[in-house]
Amino acid sequence: MATLADIGVAAALNILSALIFLLAFAILRLQPLNDRVYFPKWYLVGLRNDPLKSGGFVKKVVNLDWKAYIRFLNWVPAALKMPELELIDHAGLDSAVYLRIYLLGLKIFIPITLLAFAVLAPVNWTNKTLKKSGLTYSAIDKISISNVPLGSERFWAHILMAYVSTVWTCYVLQKEYAKVADMRLQFLASAERRPDQFTVLVRNVPPDTDESVSESVEHFFLVNTDHYLTNQVVYNANKLAKLVKEKNSKQNWLDYYNLKYSRNKSKRPMMKTRFLGLCGEKVDAINHQTAEVERLSKEIAAERERVKNDPKSIMPVAFVSFKTRWAAAICAQTQQSRNPTLWLTDWAPEPRDVYWKNLAIPYVYLTVRRLIIGVAFFFLTFFFMIPITFVQTLASIEGIRKIAPFLKVIIDISFVKSFIQGFLPGIALKIFLIVLPRILMLMSKFEGWGSISALERKAASKYYIFNFVNVFLGSIIAGAAFDQLNTFIHQSANEIPKTIGVAIPMKATFFITYTMVDGWAGIAGEILRLKPLILFHLKNFFLVKTERDREKAMDAGSLNFNTGEPQIQLYFLLGLVYAIVTPFLLPFILVFFALAYFVFRHQIINVYHQEYESGAAFWPDVHGRIIFALVFSQISLLGLLSTKRAAQSAPFLIALPVLTLSFHYFCKGRYEPAFTRYPLQEAKRKDTIEQAKESKLNLKYYLQKAYLHPVFRGDDVDDNEDVNDKLESNDVELIPMKRHSRGSTPGPSRISGASQEEMLQHQEE
Amino acid sequence: MATLADIGVAAALNILSALIFLLAFAILRLQPLNDRVYFPKWYLVGLRNDPLKSGGFVKKVVNLDWKAYIRFLNWVPAALKMPELELIDHAGLDSAVYLRIYLLGLKIFIPITLLAFAVLAPVNWTNKTLKKSGLTYSAIDKISISNVPLGSERFWAHILMAYVSTVWTCYVLQKEYAKVADMRLQFLASAERRPDQFTVLVRNVPPDTDESVSESVEHFFLVNTDHYLTNQVVYNANKLAKLVKEKNSKQNWLDYYNLKYSRNKSKRPMMKTRFLGLCGEKVDAINHQTAEVERLSKEIAAERERVKNDPKSIMPVAFVSFKTRWAAAICAQTQQSRNPTLWLTDWAPEPRDVYWKNLAIPYVYLTVRRLIIGVAFFFLTFFFMIPITFVQTLASIEGIRKIAPFLKVIIDISFVKSFIQGFLPGIALKIFLIVLPRILMLMSKFEGWGSISALERKAASKYYIFNFVNVFLGSIIAGAAFDQLNTFIHQSANEIPKTIGVAIPMKATFFITYTMVDGWAGIAGEILRLKPLILFHLKNFFLVKTERDREKAMDAGSLNFNTGEPQIQLYFLLGLVYAIVTPFLLPFILVFFALAYFVFRHQIINVYHQEYESGAAFWPDVHGRIIFALVFSQISLLGLLSTKRAAQSAPFLIALPVLTLSFHYFCKGRYEPAFTRYPLQEAKRKDTIEQAKESKLNLKYYLQKAYLHPVFRGDDVDDNEDVNDKLESNDVELIPMKRHSRGSTPGPSRISGASQEEMLQHQEE
Repeated sequence: MATLADIGVAAALNILSALIFLLAFAILRLQPLNDRVYFPKWYLVGLRNDPLKSGGFVKKVVNLDWKAYIRFLNWVPAALKMPELELIDHAGLDSAVYLRIYLLGLKIFIPITLLAFAVLAPVNWTNKTLKKSGLTYSAIDKISISNVPLGSERFWAHILMAYVSTVWTCYVLQKEYAKVADMRLQFLASAERRPDQFTVLVRNVPPDTDESVSESVEHFFLVNTDHYLTNQVVYNANKLAKLVKEKNSKQNWLDYYNLKYSRNKSKRPMMKTRFLGLCGEKVDAINHQTAEVERLSKEIAAERERVKNDPKSIMPVAFVSFKTRWAAAICAQTQQSRNPTLWLTDWAPEPRDVYWKNLAIPYVYLTVRRLIIGVAFFFLTFFFMIPITFVQTLASIEGIRKIAPFLKVIIDISFVKSFIQGFLPGIALKIFLIVLPRILMLMSKFEGWGSISALERKAASKYYIFNFVNVFLGSIIAGAAFDQLNTFIHQSANEIPKTIGVAIPMKATFFITYTMVDGWAGIAGEILRLKPLILFHLKNFFLVKTERDREKAMDAGSLNFNTGEPQIQLYFLLGLVYAIVTPFLLPFILVFFALAYFVFRHQIINVYHQEYESGAAFWPDVHGRIIFALVFSQISLLGLLSTKRAAQSAPFLIALPVLTLSFHYFCKGRYEPAFTRYPLQEAKRKDTIEQAKESKLNLKYYLQKAYLHPVFRGDDVDDNEDVNDKLESNDVELIPMKRHSRGSTPGPSRISGASQEEMLQHQEE
Repeated sequence: MATLADIGVAAALNILSALIFLLAFAILRLQPLNDRVYFPKWYLVGLRNDPLKSGGFVKKVVNLDWKAYIRFLNWVPAALKMPELELIDHAGLDSAVYLRIYLLGLKIFIPITLLAFAVLAPVNWTNKTLKKSGLTYSAIDKISISNVPLGSERFWAHILMAYVSTVWTCYVLQKEYAKVADMRLQFLASAERRPDQFTVLVRNVPPDTDESVSESVEHFFLVNTDHYLTNQVVYNANKLAKLVKEKNSKQNWLDYYNLKYSRNKSKRPMMKTRFLGLCGEKVDAINHQTAEVERLSKEIAAERERVKNDPKSIMPVAFVSFKTRWAAAICAQTQQSRNPTLWLTDWAPEPRDVYWKNLAIPYVYLTVRRLIIGVAFFFLTFFFMIPITFVQTLASIEGIRKIAPFLKVIIDISFVKSFIQGFLPGIALKIFLIVLPRILMLMSKFEGWGSISALERKAASKYYIFNFVNVFLGSIIAGAAFDQLNTFIHQSANEIPKTIGVAIPMKATFFITYTMVDGWAGIAGEILRLKPLILFHLKNFFLVKTERDREKAMDAGSLNFNTGEPQIQLYFLLGLVYAIVTPFLLPFILVFFALAYFVFRHQIINVYHQEYESGAAFWPDVHGRIIFALVFSQISLLGLLSTKRAAQSAPFLIALPVLTLSFHYFCKGRYEPAFTRYPLQEAKRKDTIEQAKESKLNLKYYLQKAYLHPVFRGDDVDDNEDVNDKLESNDVELIPMKRHSRGSTPGPSRISGASQEEMLQHQEE
């Protein structure tokens, strides 16, 4: 085991690299050239103008104000300054509640850390087990549970601490759940009018030979519900979307050539027609692109007509809108038809949150798809090492020699040889781990969830399970996951907690290092935004042709719930598991939570741009995973203690998981409805207030086009900017609806009250 | 293991006893004296008159018509004659669907039996493993899987059969689920107007200082819902119920003495006032009872006023009725208030199905109560043998000598000694097993379910688990449940199926005998109704004072879902587990299903009286347990095969439980909503039809008193017969609402269309 000094060195190194990151960030963010990298959120809400447009050339690129550099850490108080309500207004409830997860970590672990150091540290320290054993040990081990002799009465202190930390954690969790549920209801109650409040997503509309889907939906809901207003059917417009995308690309080129020509009138710009302009006939670029754009415009118009009129491209899915929130709430929460697989109703997601592709999957397929993904995910989690090992074998010198003998000459060069030997085997695993979140997101998409927020939640669950099995258990019990699976299957039920429990204290130093690398330096790296920084400047230099391109080169990014939340959860798990066993780990986790809170608060305020607003619908997942970590920590402590000849005290720990789980069920019943249902009382109240305030509101007009497929929304706008943005974003596999909030759908987070005017002004530019 | 001849003898004995029961039944049921024991249902619906009132004395007691005896089995075709629709009319949907469980058993097992005997029997029989082994074996073992040599290719036949039987079972289950769901919806759609269609049970009404519960409810629902009609608060009327019961008893005595005096005018009947009329002052009975009845009437009136006016006796619970089924369906399925633990709405049970005592338990307590019962039930299931063993030790000769030395003289008598030694130790277990269903019902009541049907379902689940652990697993792996638990905890996950799988074929003969005793003779005994027969005649002889008493002495009984369904499920489990392993067991189970179907169809038509109508709400439970049995059988087969050196074929079996479970989830999504939700389309249709038919209906008057606590219902009736019946039945712990259908609440099963007139006539008697 590492000594205290080793840890010290590692800590120093990591603190140093974290500080370097922070310092680099402090300097880079002050340069006007990087302004769009570090403050994109403000550009997007229209509250910041390009510093490049004003001042001299040097001033444009480098910040020469030396005063600014002195206060290089002043982003921290700035990040903390914005009050929570304003934050909700500025960045949405999802982001504000996401930050509360870090705060929750601090709330749970600060008292536990203090208590553990006050109680457990002396209890452990004042033993001589390790001294007697003659093994090498460090100070960390001396204050860990390993130092308590077998069968000691002192284990009662640990059991007591387990109870205290469980009770405290549950108390904080319950308070937090109540608070978040309240925030959500408050948010929904105070939210502006949004189309999703009035709208219900209806799936599996049964086919009718006499009526179109829209008519059939209209008749059904006119008969069976009150307050029916209108409906919008969903079109299968994938081909159309492709055409629109193509046209926009051509349009961009046209703009570029026009710009080029206007700068240098002497020479008409020329281009080659084939293979990215590298070969083929040379033609006049402006004429060619104009012709292309015209051709595509015609094709689009034709395709649009076809989609709208061809019954085959109409999916049996519709967004049904009602005159009142009350009626929509009712419709979303009740069963409509005798056959529970027809006329499936559910809350409509926010327009920008809709994942259009999945809307037409029939009910039966959903079961089959989820089964397939369930099995596939099981194999992915436990057996992913097998193909990777296989690839690694192939990527070895021997493997290449066998498969491709003709490469023999190249790989015998000593540089190439050492590269292959040293680098290639590891790269397969690295690549896999990098693409893993994308794979999990694809799996969730295949499962058929209809909104991006749901997709992210499901992908996060999968990522958490994968991390738990492969990162946490994989580190504790060395060996690949399928070896573990094999071990666990062949072990008796009471041996498994013992195996895990005994291994846990031995891995404390590993996880301390892990926390510093992943949790400290990693988070500090996050604020530097190295990748977007480089990409922005590359794009700016090579690709940016028009002002619109510069806008697009600015990649605000967003909170990636599907990767971020599982990462936090790993620290909750580590903290809860080690709180009793090796309290020395706790301060490291506290530093992570505090640092991450500052960094992400800053990022949320200045950088990230919210893709959708789910109203903190993820909280039940967060809560459930912390409960899982708690129960896991209790069971592993039980396993550990039962090997310490403290068997007579271990039974007292059995009650803990039972109590924790029943606490979970209590919370589930008490607070979860706030996340899945919409109280009628609230709906009615909002309806009544609205009716009193704006009795002449033309709701039908307001809702008419709210749930139009993004490609059709362009019809009304002269320049296709919205559509363009929307389609462009569809390429990005993981974040399909990026920057939707710039679209025509209203959202409370988009326009922060005061900035509405500037926003409009910005849009008109 | 038992030989075929042993089984033959056992079968002969059990067939004989079953035949004796059937014969006795055939003779006894023809005697006019027993008419009320064997045909109470017809008395209750008013279609049968007392044969004792007509004909000579001998004819009244003994049936002398010899022709009747010849056709002693003619109850079987008679029981089958009634078509299902008429049966639903006559005995309710619950009973009709309950019978379908037996039919389901036949549908599943007849093809499986045929196939198993056609395929597996020859495959197993044509081996010589047992012959070679030199062990004693019987013909049963020869056609069981034990006869197949280790590592044989023939196990593929068993795997194939496992697939075929799983597919067939799932197919039948799916058809049946669809059919039952359809029957339920049909039943609800065609049902007459019932109060529960318009009514919602609202719990946890928040206290209001300014308003009464009723006012508060009225205001809340007038504001937040449409079509609110009226509400009825729930009173805590336990003391009142006690007084009413006392008064009715005195009234009965008064009737009796009046009858006695009218027969013999020469002597005023006298009675003693204390301790059941055994001691105390001797007074004139008629005067005394008249005075008592008057005193109690006054007390009741006072108490009734107190209950109605004292705010403390009003519980925060109300039955809220709406003008339309549509509005009720909406209110029951949505959340009303921001705080999801206030204004909890749920379907109102049928009035006679309400379990009044549980209506006022606040939400928080429900979690706590369920936790307590969960833990208690765990200990009951696994550790019930400990107190029983303790009692058995006390009940031994030595135990009694130690505890009560003064009894030494008595227990040294050789007769008493042998009685204690032979009988007492076993009696503790017997008594426990007899009272077990009551204990489980009490547990369910403590959990706080609000309707009798829910209580019976929950008690059935508990009884099934208990039977599975203690009867099934307990027989397979000898030893008490806590020994098994210990074994399983100390065994690895892949050893457990092996342990069970290997033990299963060895216990085939035991379960064959079990099936014959419990399933054949037991069911045949059910039709004889020995206990009600004896009790009826005893009551008739000693207690029956008035005509009303004779009515009461007639104990129709009812289907006890909480004990009956778990028993059937045990046979499903046995059948599915042994179908592949020892097909010889299957015919015995088929006989059980067929016999039980005939017997219970007869009993439901002629004897049992439905207590409540839940609309077959129990089917999801039935379905779920068969799925569990299926998965269990697959896993145990997997365990067995993995010990047979057929490891290479075993992996094919792993897919089966996965597929079965996903089939289960498919069914759950597809059909379960029919049992938990009420489609709005249906509700609207019924409303529309009703409005067109009876536009002048005074629904408010109809619903006004529907959900009045039974003790208040007596207010309007001159003689308190209804109340009396209702209260009397409250004593019976297990079947609290017995014979409620004679009360004033309407129910579709009570009045079978044609017999309405006779029914009314009967009520007027």
